[in-house]
Amino acid sequence: MTQLHGKNLIAGTLSDAVAHFTATSPLDGSTLEGNFAMATAADVDAAMLGAAAASGAFAAATGEQRAALLERIAEEIEALGDALLERAHQETALPLARLTGERGRTVGQLRLFAAAARDGRWADPRIDRAMPDRQPLPRPDLRRAKRPLGPVVVFGSSNFPLAFSVAGGDTASALCTGNPVVVKAHRAHPGTSELVGSAIAKAVAACGLPAGIFSMLHGEGSVMGIALVRHPATRAVGFTGSRAAGRALCDAAAARPDPIPVFAEMSSLNPVFLLPGALAERGAGIAQGFVASMTLGVGQFCTKPGLVFAVEGPDLDAFEAGVAEGVTAAPAASMLTPDILRAYSAGCEHLASLPQATTLAAATAKADPAHTQAAARVVKTDVASFLADPGYAEEVFGPASLIVTAASAEELRTVAARLEGQLTATVHGTADDLAAAADLLEILATRAGRVIVNGFPTGVEVCHAMQHGGPWPATSDSRFTSVGSAALERFVRPVCYQDVPDALLPDALKDANPLGLERLVNGVRGTH
Amino acid sequence: MTQLHGKNLIAGTLSDAVAHFTATSPLDGSTLEGNFAMATAADVDAAMLGAAAASGAFAAATGEQRAALLERIAEEIEALGDALLERAHQETALPLARLTGERGRTVGQLRLFAAAARDGRWADPRIDRAMPDRQPLPRPDLRRAKRPLGPVVVFGSSNFPLAFSVAGGDTASALCTGNPVVVKAHRAHPGTSELVGSAIAKAVAACGLPAGIFSMLHGEGSVMGIALVRHPATRAVGFTGSRAAGRALCDAAAARPDPIPVFAEMSSLNPVFLLPGALAERGAGIAQGFVASMTLGVGQFCTKPGLVFAVEGPDLDAFEAGVAEGVTAAPAASMLTPDILRAYSAGCEHLASLPQATTLAAATAKADPAHTQAAARVVKTDVASFLADPGYAEEVFGPASLIVTAASAEELRTVAARLEGQLTATVHGTADDLAAAADLLEILATRAGRVIVNGFPTGVEVCHAMQHGGPWPATSDSRFTSVGSAALERFVRPVCYQDVPDALLPDALKDANPLGLERLVNGVRGTH
Repeated sequence: MTQLHGKNLIAGTLSDAVAHFTATSPLDGSTLEGNFAMATAADVDAAMLGAAAASGAFAAATGEQRAALLERIAEEIEALGDALLERAHQETALPLARLTGERGRTVGQLRLFAAAARDGRWADPRIDRAMPDRQPLPRPDLRRAKRPLGPVVVFGSSNFPLAFSVAGGDTASALCTGNPVVVKAHRAHPGTSELVGSAIAKAVAACGLPAGIFSMLHGEGSVMGIALVRHPATRAVGFTGSRAAGRALCDAAAARPDPIPVFAEMSSLNPVFLLPGALAERGAGIAQGFVASMTLGVGQFCTKPGLVFAVEGPDLDAFEAGVAEGVTAAPAASMLTPDILRAYSAGCEHLASLPQATTLAAATAKADPAHTQAAARVVKTDVASFLADPGYAEEVFGPASLIVTAASAEELRTVAARLEGQLTATVHGTADDLAAAADLLEILATRAGRVIVNGFPTGVEVCHAMQHGGPWPATSDSRFTSVGSAALERFVRPVCYQDVPDALLPDALKDANPLGLERLVNGVRGTH
Repeated sequence: MTQLHGKNLIAGTLSDAVAHFTATSPLDGSTLEGNFAMATAADVDAAMLGAAAASGAFAAATGEQRAALLERIAEEIEALGDALLERAHQETALPLARLTGERGRTVGQLRLFAAAARDGRWADPRIDRAMPDRQPLPRPDLRRAKRPLGPVVVFGSSNFPLAFSVAGGDTASALCTGNPVVVKAHRAHPGTSELVGSAIAKAVAACGLPAGIFSMLHGEGSVMGIALVRHPATRAVGFTGSRAAGRALCDAAAARPDPIPVFAEMSSLNPVFLLPGALAERGAGIAQGFVASMTLGVGQFCTKPGLVFAVEGPDLDAFEAGVAEGVTAAPAASMLTPDILRAYSAGCEHLASLPQATTLAAATAKADPAHTQAAARVVKTDVASFLADPGYAEEVFGPASLIVTAASAEELRTVAARLEGQLTATVHGTADDLAAAADLLEILATRAGRVIVNGFPTGVEVCHAMQHGGPWPATSDSRFTSVGSAALERFVRPVCYQDVPDALLPDALKDANPLGLERLVNGVRGTH
């Protein structure tokens, strides 16, 4: 494979540093190739000032130019071939098949945003024409379109080293709308990050765009990451990771002399409600699907179902038996990092130690710490205990879940209404179950960004109708999403142009409508 | 006029308190009718819990029901007749003609949001249909629509006692989309607030909607207002007021266990750039328009032009002479409150005392403090001094402005790029001026929410293309607006429904499209 230089990538140039770190494979604890430079304060400054300096030119680039950039990034990532997947596998222990799929999703996502850059619909152009004869005062000509916010800091996440990392959805949606991006590479996969970062830099150069629109730095989130959030040139932040880290970034952004928006996707239990008819009719099948969903990617999905609610009874007993069977037989698997494994083990112990908690099942396969392996676990309690101890509602990142038994359908509603914000909430029910549970679905729609019927939450489609963002602590702002074409709305702001001559207007607002956009003209939508 | 009860209005019932305050007329210092109850912690709790309890029913109301409510509120306000205008005049010293216009704007705004509630476009429905045969995995049916956030706390502002107060744009946009509202009435016009608040409560009852969707409390922003922002049931905040108060609310919201969004409109200097051709061609006319704009409403507009930049020379001298003439002759006028007058006077003194500041002109009419009267003032400095001392960029709320002379067109661009965020930025120029100033306009579009050519910023149209929101400190989130139909976007969040049976979907997403909405279906817009 390509030799890794380990340097920080700042506006097309490489910067070394005094302090370095190496990557360790969770597969076997071996040290991987590459000596990675911890970015300095000067690197942070250079990257952000480079981004700020490139902002104007990038904002002025056409949609076609930005589309070409995103497509070229996708091609450059594909051109990295198996070397990228192999390095990502070594760094994350995620299987090659999964990484192959994730690469497909990543380049597909880049191409979706390329299409969005090309069609230009995101500008949401609106024109209210002048009314010179209006009484008592004439109305001026008013035109509004969205434009980029400016430099966006993106934090790569550990659990999706491609799709939510250097060239993930945050980067794609920021570049799509003309915002320079500075990525804080995740410590757990610096080599993967360097390969993808270099691919982006190559694409930027090939497209003749200013190098400052992309930089990537290595370092600690709690030091260098916070410095990026605090930098005066930073205009917005995209983050996927833990609740503690997300909160720290939100707090740092809110404490700036000029607070900036942070979209942090943090913590979600993704509750699943099992209604009686479904339990009776296909409890065994749901149990199987549930175990597969909670252990997918070693439970390291932000949408892992970590919480199951159902009314007690023989059908629930049968479901639990099915879950116990599946979990007991689940193979041990390597987690992303030793730290994540430690947090997982501690989280499981804490969960199982709570009042009225019992362990329903734990995988019997030996989980070898030398291979960073985790064993799946399912814990059980009842609604009263769940509500009494907030410890039950702490996310355990990894292949663990909690089954909570209710005494009645009413108790299900009560507990649903008291849940914190979630990325997803799922209901399994027959047609009759669902007809009787309209109020439960309505409650869940107030608690979660996505409501799922008779499915599992772990699949997150990249499409127009996706919403990957729920009330706190699922995300820091439930009005936005980090997956799907609407993700670009996080990084744009409207500007109104009053009586500005046609030649000086953005193309989206010019009289002749040169981009052929659908616009809202005097309140009527059309391509006029 | 109706006798004022002075009580807090909580979900349709009246609540008295131990501590009270009265309203004083800035016109003559007289104590006005009414003894107003300072809301207690229990009142705050009751109002917020009432709002939370009504959230579900109000979210489930139809667009037609919400439209009827907004229209009824408009009618009830109109039915208050001259008594409302007279009381507002006594409380704010704003002239009756201005208040008549503001009432028209307020009811017009309510009707605009009624139309938005009725057409339902705000839900932005999107459908990505299932692809059961897709490889490697089928795609589920995914549908996304926006829904209300939940209880919104609205802070009435002092300077628009009708249009940005109890039934102003924040309340209208929150109610339009199904969010209960709790208003913190402004201390400066409690009687006006009571009249309008009672009109809203009457409309809520007449429409058969739950009383909890509207409450109004009296009290101090720094105590009761902060308590409202911190209340667990509060889901979002709308505020128009000072930078210090807005910052305090933003900080309180960000420090919650679950941070919530605040849209605070705070502080803007609304810079005006005079280009040489325009100065030469019509400097006298611009001077006249400028003085009218800066003294409109005694300078108490958030869009008052508080800053003028131009290149020095004889044409600027002539402009300044025109401004001096207008300002010198400006009549003394009553400000909203003695506190605002004190802050204005102190701000003027501070501005005039800065290094290299000279007073260009001050109104000669006697400003009588017994009538809370202010005298207009214009101060002058140069770009170097302006950039050297941040004191020059502090907003002086009232009829004051600062003219800053530049040595060159280049210096205009330099200073433009270093401005803080603004609600508006204005350029006066001939066709030739403007053709040469495309880069200046582009810089201003990065600094302001609205860019105006050859006009004045004080008029803010309520329409689809308006943007009343710029980068900090103009507002707390430049991605949103508090004026125009887009203002409702502050208070809604999308929810994605995955494989949810048709009968349980919101109407906006049902297969038959019963609302006849334009929707994005598989990426294509249409009413299919």
